[in-house]
Amino acid sequence: MEYQFSERVQNLKPSAIREIFKYAADPEVISLSAGNPSPEAFPVRELAEVSNDILTNRPIDALQYSVTEGYVPLRDFLRDYMKKTHHIGRDFDDVLITTGAQQVMDLTTKSLCNEGDVVLCEAPSFIGSLNTFRSFKVRLRGVRMEEDGMDLEALETALREEPAVKFIYTIPNFQNPTGITMSWEKRKAVYALAKKYGVMILEDNPYGDLRFSGEHIPAIKSLDEDGLVLYSGSFSKVIAPGLRVGYAVAPKAVMQKMVVCKQGEDVHTNIWSQMVCDGFLRRYDFDAHLARLRDIYREKSAYTMDLLDKHLAPYITYHPIDGGLFLWCTLPAGVDMPAFCKQAVLRKVCVVPGNAFLTDEAEPCQSFRINYSTPTDEQLAKGIQILGGLIREIVEK
Amino acid sequence: MEYQFSERVQNLKPSAIREIFKYAADPEVISLSAGNPSPEAFPVRELAEVSNDILTNRPIDALQYSVTEGYVPLRDFLRDYMKKTHHIGRDFDDVLITTGAQQVMDLTTKSLCNEGDVVLCEAPSFIGSLNTFRSFKVRLRGVRMEEDGMDLEALETALREEPAVKFIYTIPNFQNPTGITMSWEKRKAVYALAKKYGVMILEDNPYGDLRFSGEHIPAIKSLDEDGLVLYSGSFSKVIAPGLRVGYAVAPKAVMQKMVVCKQGEDVHTNIWSQMVCDGFLRRYDFDAHLARLRDIYREKSAYTMDLLDKHLAPYITYHPIDGGLFLWCTLPAGVDMPAFCKQAVLRKVCVVPGNAFLTDEAEPCQSFRINYSTPTDEQLAKGIQILGGLIREIVEK
Repeated sequence: MEYQFSERVQNLKPSAIREIFKYAADPEVISLSAGNPSPEAFPVRELAEVSNDILTNRPIDALQYSVTEGYVPLRDFLRDYMKKTHHIGRDFDDVLITTGAQQVMDLTTKSLCNEGDVVLCEAPSFIGSLNTFRSFKVRLRGVRMEEDGMDLEALETALREEPAVKFIYTIPNFQNPTGITMSWEKRKAVYALAKKYGVMILEDNPYGDLRFSGEHIPAIKSLDEDGLVLYSGSFSKVIAPGLRVGYAVAPKAVMQKMVVCKQGEDVHTNIWSQMVCDGFLRRYDFDAHLARLRDIYREKSAYTMDLLDKHLAPYITYHPIDGGLFLWCTLPAGVDMPAFCKQAVLRKVCVVPGNAFLTDEAEPCQSFRINYSTPTDEQLAKGIQILGGLIREIVEK
Repeated sequence: MEYQFSERVQNLKPSAIREIFKYAADPEVISLSAGNPSPEAFPVRELAEVSNDILTNRPIDALQYSVTEGYVPLRDFLRDYMKKTHHIGRDFDDVLITTGAQQVMDLTTKSLCNEGDVVLCEAPSFIGSLNTFRSFKVRLRGVRMEEDGMDLEALETALREEPAVKFIYTIPNFQNPTGITMSWEKRKAVYALAKKYGVMILEDNPYGDLRFSGEHIPAIKSLDEDGLVLYSGSFSKVIAPGLRVGYAVAPKAVMQKMVVCKQGEDVHTNIWSQMVCDGFLRRYDFDAHLARLRDIYREKSAYTMDLLDKHLAPYITYHPIDGGLFLWCTLPAGVDMPAFCKQAVLRKVCVVPGNAFLTDEAEPCQSFRINYSTPTDEQLAKGIQILGGLIREIVEK
């Protein structure tokens, strides 16, 4: 049969990153290309205890159909916790549990955007979100990143030039892929611009709790007295990603539309997972758990940055990080970045070419992303040494 | 803020069924309106054993990110099992694990349909699927149901008249809401028509394993030598719905597009759930488990049909069933169906008005759907007696 696909999937080309992942499947390859939390960060014993308790004492609740909005005790917990801890959520907001934060991106776009509408996003930005936006045939316009977040002039120019902007997409903390954190001044300015131009903000914050140094900066959503910020949170990085539990704090009017869309996608999020998250949050000390994660990531990122200093300087520069899972490395002018990444793979080290994160993959880019949380220390040492050898060969040749 | 939603969600109106569910939340109301499997059908002990084993011996595998296509051993099991047991799957097919079968409907529509394309569906049909189709702004055209499935003449007329049909949607076994099973002759004819007109078939089969009487009829997918049938299966009715594990057996070319769409929706299906399903299927006797479910549903449906005969005859007729979870009851001509359902709710019995399942809810309809698997025997007895009292009052007045 001759298949006729929808226009929206015809436009979704397999990305460069997928090509890379094929190599990463080779067990001999050191993958610095993933985005997995460190396995030692999972509270395995606690989750098993909670799960065992649920399946022993309330099995039917965990196995039967449930409601689309999410498990009520977990929604209650999050409503209180986010308000108390982060000043997130007003009377006009509510909490929706989703199948991972990825689904927040999907439901937001599905609820707000017609084909041809525009989403403004940081350039570069998280490829998973960009592809979700693309799958609804919205047009992406990238806004250049500075050391402290989006270039505000470029953002306002885009808002002025594009009449069909529906929302601004930002990862304000330890951004994927750059590791950049938006300053408090810029958060206020982005909020003011969104208000001035009548567009929404989709604030994606999977890494905010993984700050291991420097000062905490409040979320843009904490400023939201106008109901224009949709906040996306996730348990993937702070409990475990396999559970696929994320959440949105969103104005109720928007959430109602997202619920209708979610009903049609997966009816509700896995209810066992939701109960396990709820049980973990209520029975154990979540703040102590987060402190333990920060210790793990502080140590591992410092180890990695030392390796980068030792093996890649002076040729490859990187942006030091205060949190999150990624380091953004930049090659000297004149070095062919895609060729470098390909050479690295042939030497059995996998990194992600930076153009994968651009709104237009064909744009020139000198950077690549490495992840330090998934590989072992031995793999990090060996992998970064190989990258160092490669860049030296290229530059000193 | 003045929210501007996408056209697709503006067109999604809250359905009659949602209105009904508000009443059903009242603990005093007897709900015959759900679609939940019977809690006694869940293999609780076995699932707890498998889960405990996984979280003890392979916790990281169950908690870490996984691949979009699904857990490889579960895909392998299903590929073999469906081929051996149901003659489903050819070399051009593959298996995709989804977050419930609802996601199969979503990914199929997203991959195949542009806005304005047409989906042909049974009239009436499952409201959840119809709403998924609607959420992509496809146009639905209903095909009248006969005692043995779709009216073939009406189906061919629709195929001839509508140039933009992308697929035919059918629930061939114990259809939701009518309980009707499509005959083998009609399955062959529907396949031939799809082939003749070059459209696909989305065969949704959540209830096929719940046949408690009569002869098994092979799936339409078992005929598929041309790669035009997309088969949707689910563990919701045969293991547990809270796990949210469904699957598609689809031509590889279509599945590749569905995988790209799924990546943007939820990255992958809850991996613990997938491992639990896999462990249950491999460690226990699945066929014996299905036989036990059939015993439960045979007994409970017979009990319910006896009650219907006793209390609703001669005024309300129903279609006797050989499987599935639903009974389709029809009121005498002249009785106002929506008013009847509203009166029933005021007497604290909840059923689903049949027009909720039509492509156009405004069309006249004399039927309502009841579910017998969720309520207790006592609730069934009391609820059906109340319905009988109500119809008698209306007709004999």
